[in-house]
Amino acid sequence: MCASCDAASNGQANGQTNGNGTSNGTNGANHDGFTSIKSAHNPHPSHRSSPYAPVGDFLSNVSRFKIIESTLREGEQFANAYFDLEAKIKIARALDDFGVDYIELTSPAASEQSRRDCEAICKLGLKAKILTHVRCHLDDAKIAVETGVDGLDVVIGTSSYLREHSHGKDMTYIKNTALEVIEFVKSKGKEIRFSSEDSFRSDLVDLLSIYSAVDKVGVDRVGIADTVGCASPRQVYDLVRTLRGVVSCDIETHFHNDSGCAIANAFCALEAGATHIDTSVLGIGERNGITPLGGLMARMIVADRDYVINKYNIKKLKEVEDLVADLVEVNVPFNNYITGFCAFTHKAGIHAKAILNNPSTYEIINPQDFGMSRYVHFASRLTGWNAIKSRAEQLGIQMSDAQYKECTTKIKAIADVRKIALDDTDSIIRTYYHNLHAEEEKPLLPGLTAEEEKKFIEAEKELEGVKEKRQLDAAAAADAEVPESKKTRTAVVA
Amino acid sequence: MCASCDAASNGQANGQTNGNGTSNGTNGANHDGFTSIKSAHNPHPSHRSSPYAPVGDFLSNVSRFKIIESTLREGEQFANAYFDLEAKIKIARALDDFGVDYIELTSPAASEQSRRDCEAICKLGLKAKILTHVRCHLDDAKIAVETGVDGLDVVIGTSSYLREHSHGKDMTYIKNTALEVIEFVKSKGKEIRFSSEDSFRSDLVDLLSIYSAVDKVGVDRVGIADTVGCASPRQVYDLVRTLRGVVSCDIETHFHNDSGCAIANAFCALEAGATHIDTSVLGIGERNGITPLGGLMARMIVADRDYVINKYNIKKLKEVEDLVADLVEVNVPFNNYITGFCAFTHKAGIHAKAILNNPSTYEIINPQDFGMSRYVHFASRLTGWNAIKSRAEQLGIQMSDAQYKECTTKIKAIADVRKIALDDTDSIIRTYYHNLHAEEEKPLLPGLTAEEEKKFIEAEKELEGVKEKRQLDAAAAADAEVPESKKTRTAVVA
Repeated sequence: MCASCDAASNGQANGQTNGNGTSNGTNGANHDGFTSIKSAHNPHPSHRSSPYAPVGDFLSNVSRFKIIESTLREGEQFANAYFDLEAKIKIARALDDFGVDYIELTSPAASEQSRRDCEAICKLGLKAKILTHVRCHLDDAKIAVETGVDGLDVVIGTSSYLREHSHGKDMTYIKNTALEVIEFVKSKGKEIRFSSEDSFRSDLVDLLSIYSAVDKVGVDRVGIADTVGCASPRQVYDLVRTLRGVVSCDIETHFHNDSGCAIANAFCALEAGATHIDTSVLGIGERNGITPLGGLMARMIVADRDYVINKYNIKKLKEVEDLVADLVEVNVPFNNYITGFCAFTHKAGIHAKAILNNPSTYEIINPQDFGMSRYVHFASRLTGWNAIKSRAEQLGIQMSDAQYKECTTKIKAIADVRKIALDDTDSIIRTYYHNLHAEEEKPLLPGLTAEEEKKFIEAEKELEGVKEKRQLDAAAAADAEVPESKKTRTAVVA
Repeated sequence: MCASCDAASNGQANGQTNGNGTSNGTNGANHDGFTSIKSAHNPHPSHRSSPYAPVGDFLSNVSRFKIIESTLREGEQFANAYFDLEAKIKIARALDDFGVDYIELTSPAASEQSRRDCEAICKLGLKAKILTHVRCHLDDAKIAVETGVDGLDVVIGTSSYLREHSHGKDMTYIKNTALEVIEFVKSKGKEIRFSSEDSFRSDLVDLLSIYSAVDKVGVDRVGIADTVGCASPRQVYDLVRTLRGVVSCDIETHFHNDSGCAIANAFCALEAGATHIDTSVLGIGERNGITPLGGLMARMIVADRDYVINKYNIKKLKEVEDLVADLVEVNVPFNNYITGFCAFTHKAGIHAKAILNNPSTYEIINPQDFGMSRYVHFASRLTGWNAIKSRAEQLGIQMSDAQYKECTTKIKAIADVRKIALDDTDSIIRTYYHNLHAEEEKPLLPGLTAEEEKKFIEAEKELEGVKEKRQLDAAAAADAEVPESKKTRTAVVA
């Protein structure tokens, strides 16, 4: 049975215990024509063969991963990031509340300010382990171990590009320096990771031989970094899978998002046996950044919801993202994972209908897990009558299906004439209902111009066709015991 | 040799013929402390074994894919999208200029306005084929074929979720309806695609049997849709790979981005033999949307640059995105692929240095291919002296390495004290150079408060350490034949 079905059904089950979480505006934008609604519960879906579900693979760490949160290192390299100590402390505390396993800081060798900030954050006594990211160089390592960090993430470029154009060192030099630095850091009782840079454009034999060498001297983690964002998911799976067979230590992975695979690559790395994923809040980093913390949560909750909700305080996600967005002066992208304003909106009639029956039909993530809420859109020309029926029922209005259908026709006709908001839809439903039973009719949507009215009547005619229209009217009238006096079409305007 | 190295080197080669493309602001945001710069040319990099490069696979369509652009269908289901005919025509023309293979429109059965708009767009005489997306229902198909479209994309939900909670039909009904609709559409001489909905939560046997049946009656394409955004890259590869062995027709894929894999899944689908990818501009669609056109271009240009730049007018990307962003009233995300304001910025000293030597060191995509430009950041505490040297050379200032290094120290010290913009950096470099040769010294950064000055002096001391500092001063002085009168440290303030 498919892991995502799993997630979906569990997700809904949990949704029920979470309360309805209809806190409007948590998605942070005005929602013309949207409303937060309670949906039917999710009957546990019947499952059948799905051979393409990821099988319980002894290699996979999808249910055992750890997060190395690098907003204060990779994130500090984002174009707009200038974190002073106060900002860094706010971010570190927020990440600690969220429950990340590690917090990575800029190298104390980068500047005196960086060194002081690093010391200060180590003194906060956070639950998360504190790491700092330093060049594979003894001088930098010496400065780093004095700051009180729990561990060092050392890195050196191994691709021909970086060896030629960056540090200009050969593999022998790299290996010797690595061993020297690792020995030193271990002698100081600190955790140590050795990572290559630009791993996916490095020579495989070079990579495996240096990883194997550092593993033998007891490095805690080796790191693979897609520094330029060129790797594709199956390349990542294959490289990590091979490395998993070569080293016995943990495997950390770092993916840039230049070609849109940073989240998928992290997932495939875990499937292949990687143990740690680097993230930053909103993905901020060099260029367009790395695997975003929220995006990784979106992917992993689909793969193993229990692990994610039990380990991380995911209801804090929006808070953390808003904090960082303010500090680096960017807007949270409109289409951001989970917290973007449209992440849980449903518009097309066919979607709205199914969502009302069972949110899992068109949702793989339960918004309530993240303290977000769901929106269903009624007021568009794509609206279906089932959505209108459920909306009417929310408003306490009971009509026959024929009446719901005719009412929907009118709403769609008006939506063809002008943009209508949810309030408009509600008042049209109420007025339509009132007009069915009242002698005196009210306009469905007050304030339509003569031209809009004309357009509306055309639109409605075209929508139904005269013949079908008459049948509807008759049926609606019959259902409503309409007063003898009125057998005419419900008026649009007074 | 790795496809991405390929792309990188070709990319740079092309960059040279493209001119330097230093049109500032094309990335659409103000760049405090950034500048667009000319970089060294890319010597063709020496390649070695990279077994994890995707091999030329007979299955793969990575170099043969087609785009079905659905901004006017999926995109119309985006929360903020209300396209009138004028807007639709603008978008259709822009997509046609870009060179997409197909433009997909909302079902003409959705509303009369949709039907009229569909007819109007078919009359534009675009190069792109026009498709419309309709439910697998004869009534809808009849309306659609009358609009003048080139083809129909029919869809029906096949997952247990949708069968139970949406249309409530069983597989036999679905198959019979599908065959009826296909026969009808083909009899009208139109192209026809049959797609399941929520394919990754559908029963595999059901899927394969219906795809095989529609393939036998001559459907042009079958479609796989990850309607809820739950699929992972290796699941996608496996399912498409299996389907490729079952049907002989084309395979279209549609991926939602709820769990961050929409671009990666599209790529893996092509690797497994899919032929068509659905996209929308900025990815707009239900919830947080689908594979974005720009994101797909970012991925594919890394995989096969020649195909992408020869087939699509990618310099139009930003124009298309800006058009749609305006129409749906959203901002282009800060971290958007290629066109986001930080897509080609480089900040850390180590990055800046290497980028100046060879952009391919930290760039897999050549910004010039998209009419964008590259930015290197100088004014931060992460700045390296190589970046300052190159900036000085841009300003026509020649100094010794010792002088560049001391100047960099001062800039980093000031960056520790206050945020400095590129202009500040330039004036600091100029003033430092002036002070080396002038009797009377100018302040490096005018308007520093007494406290800032104090902080600066501390920062500088700490950055260098007094001893190393003296050596630098001596070297700098020596290099500059400084007048006897002055052997003191260059003053910061008057």
